[in-house]
Amino acid sequence: MKPSEEERRQIERISSDLLRRVGEVAGAKGVACRGILVGSAARNTWLSGDRDIDIFLAVPEDGDLGVALEIAREIAPAHEERYAEHAYVHAVIDGFEVDLVPCYDVRDPARIKSAVDRTPFHSLYVSERIKGREDDVLLLKQFMKGVGVYGSDLKTGGFSGYLAELLVIHYGSFLRVLEGASSWRPGIRIDIAKGADISAPLVVIDPVDPNRNVAAALTLDRMSQFVAAARCFLKSPDISFFFPPESHTMRPDEIRAEIERRGTEFILLEIIAPDMVDDVLYPQMRKAEASIKNLLEREGFQLLRSDVDLLRGGDVRARLLFELSIWELPSARRHTGPPVWEAEHASRFVRSNPSPLSGPYIENGRLVVEITRKYRRAVDLLRGEIDRISLGRHLSSGERRILSTREMLEQMDGDLAGFLTAYLNKRVTVC
Amino acid sequence: MKPSEEERRQIERISSDLLRRVGEVAGAKGVACRGILVGSAARNTWLSGDRDIDIFLAVPEDGDLGVALEIAREIAPAHEERYAEHAYVHAVIDGFEVDLVPCYDVRDPARIKSAVDRTPFHSLYVSERIKGREDDVLLLKQFMKGVGVYGSDLKTGGFSGYLAELLVIHYGSFLRVLEGASSWRPGIRIDIAKGADISAPLVVIDPVDPNRNVAAALTLDRMSQFVAAARCFLKSPDISFFFPPESHTMRPDEIRAEIERRGTEFILLEIIAPDMVDDVLYPQMRKAEASIKNLLEREGFQLLRSDVDLLRGGDVRARLLFELSIWELPSARRHTGPPVWEAEHASRFVRSNPSPLSGPYIENGRLVVEITRKYRRAVDLLRGEIDRISLGRHLSSGERRILSTREMLEQMDGDLAGFLTAYLNKRVTVC
Repeated sequence: MKPSEEERRQIERISSDLLRRVGEVAGAKGVACRGILVGSAARNTWLSGDRDIDIFLAVPEDGDLGVALEIAREIAPAHEERYAEHAYVHAVIDGFEVDLVPCYDVRDPARIKSAVDRTPFHSLYVSERIKGREDDVLLLKQFMKGVGVYGSDLKTGGFSGYLAELLVIHYGSFLRVLEGASSWRPGIRIDIAKGADISAPLVVIDPVDPNRNVAAALTLDRMSQFVAAARCFLKSPDISFFFPPESHTMRPDEIRAEIERRGTEFILLEIIAPDMVDDVLYPQMRKAEASIKNLLEREGFQLLRSDVDLLRGGDVRARLLFELSIWELPSARRHTGPPVWEAEHASRFVRSNPSPLSGPYIENGRLVVEITRKYRRAVDLLRGEIDRISLGRHLSSGERRILSTREMLEQMDGDLAGFLTAYLNKRVTVC
Repeated sequence: MKPSEEERRQIERISSDLLRRVGEVAGAKGVACRGILVGSAARNTWLSGDRDIDIFLAVPEDGDLGVALEIAREIAPAHEERYAEHAYVHAVIDGFEVDLVPCYDVRDPARIKSAVDRTPFHSLYVSERIKGREDDVLLLKQFMKGVGVYGSDLKTGGFSGYLAELLVIHYGSFLRVLEGASSWRPGIRIDIAKGADISAPLVVIDPVDPNRNVAAALTLDRMSQFVAAARCFLKSPDISFFFPPESHTMRPDEIRAEIERRGTEFILLEIIAPDMVDDVLYPQMRKAEASIKNLLEREGFQLLRSDVDLLRGGDVRARLLFELSIWELPSARRHTGPPVWEAEHASRFVRSNPSPLSGPYIENGRLVVEITRKYRRAVDLLRGEIDRISLGRHLSSGERRILSTREMLEQMDGDLAGFLTAYLNKRVTVC
């Protein structure tokens, strides 16, 4: 968890080299641009193995980010360019993931010109207050990682490193954070700074920007998971909270037996997706998942649970897994119409259902007919109607397959076995 | 529909005989008691074939109903005694159903001592106003009978004869009643008299008692059925509204084929009931039906529809029929617990579900486990749990059988075939 002396020396050497080169190149070009080491590497709060170095290249408020980008390109010869709000440079140097990010050197964090301009202020705020509590931050980050709530990316919806640092600053120590969290309820507000009236599961006003909630990305469920884990750890602390035992992937025959034990049916939808970052694809996968759930339940089928997975390496494959508690329905279904006393609607309803199985009859004043269902099986419904529902911008056009339980089990690959293992063993720590 | 001259003469003869006998016997006993002919026979508004004669035996307000009962016994030698709010005498005379009902001869209908004391006032009110419109009443009653909404008993929940008469008095004719009804909406109030602020599908204040809604027994669905039928009749009048073609009972193989076409499963519950009147048993059957629907749906099964039937002749048998759209479920089921932040409840929930199939996990802040279902089939659930639910006072102790679709089809009798035919062909007139 704690970086070794060797690792620390390496990070220090690489960062100071890069910062020096920024100065040199800017000087040679005769432009104003200063390098700033930010993030956990800047304040001794990185987890061993994280190997991230973030260096910001700040130009004056009225300067040009393009200049900073050119400097970044020059000092990291083997690099790729990435794009968030603006372009930045990513390079791997001696095995460390280095981001070189152009930003504006604003005076007042309330008047930033780009989202990344805030980061140097975060770094400054934390650096001034974290001294002597770096180990608490490391413990908290590792704990969050171990219980599965670390990361403010949209896939995880958990805690950012900065948020972990602010919590340690606010509560005073790792244990105090857990004690505090164990009585959190949704809507809890931690007043590190006065700020806007924001509604979220957890509100931590950014001390460098009173309009921003540092915990904006945290979902209710990840927050709850952290609350539950904190409470368990305080009851009976154990190393496994930080380093949970590795779970083995179930064998295909184990998966088959477990599915039989559940007695449910599955549908697996696999879509070839464009090669975009998780933060773009995950929200779309969740949206597609919700659309399909909606389609199935609107027609009377019922989900027990569902989940999504994204495979990279070769084609990018979005996998959406649906477990059904009701996957087959009888031919007859009820179709409820307007109240009898809405004469026009009632007539139209009766005319548009000319030969029902039963009805029209009246229930609670409304007309009801019993008619024949178009799709008796959920998998047929999905195959027949998937083109008519919204799957999210980048998933709607990709090549796709819809597999039934049997087909899914027959075509099981290692990734799917891993996905199904995690699905079947889904469990958080509660005590 | 309209009684023949012969029928009219018969009724007149029987009623005047009985009224004369009341006077004679009361005189012989030296007590005050006068006979009053009430109901449709009193005002030429009975439907041919109804053959009901209601004679009330009125004693003074401070008198004794027992005296009237004795007179009734004397003038109808072959009789049986029945009981509503008080005892009365029922006899069959020349094929007519005669009720001899003791009541108090109150001056003011607002100060009645027993519910039946109101009837002579109803009779008086209608007699004074119905002259010349008797045929409209007959048409309306026969129309209501034909479309299935005639009868204020609890089984039907429809229109009483008195209500039909008041509607004709209010609207002026049979056709005007239908015209009026075709724009009724639930909550409609027909101001024959000023009265209490009553909420019901149809409110018709009793002109002899401002606190009573004459349409109190009318259900929303029967009212809607009448509205729909009235509208259809006005669009295209036809004799079949008054005399619908008789429906033939389906043969067992037709029933089997129709059930296969629907693709649903049925459960038939048969209970031996005590020999009580419909108005006692029907509400209890409806209550039992609701309890069972509740039990099934609480456990995740789903009803398409249900209905009840009561067989008399020999044992009284209550039959409850349930048609299921979901009759079998997988082993795995979700069980949702308290929110994570309710620490005590959360701990108890986790302890009481020690080895779930999956979970505990968190959804919308709440704990969820997936556990094994006790009953996978609806019929097994009902067989296993029927003793734990409330079936209504007179149905809970009777001998009973629970039949699956197959068993029901194998053991089909004529009554069941009739019940299933009506169930499968359920249809009201809407256009």
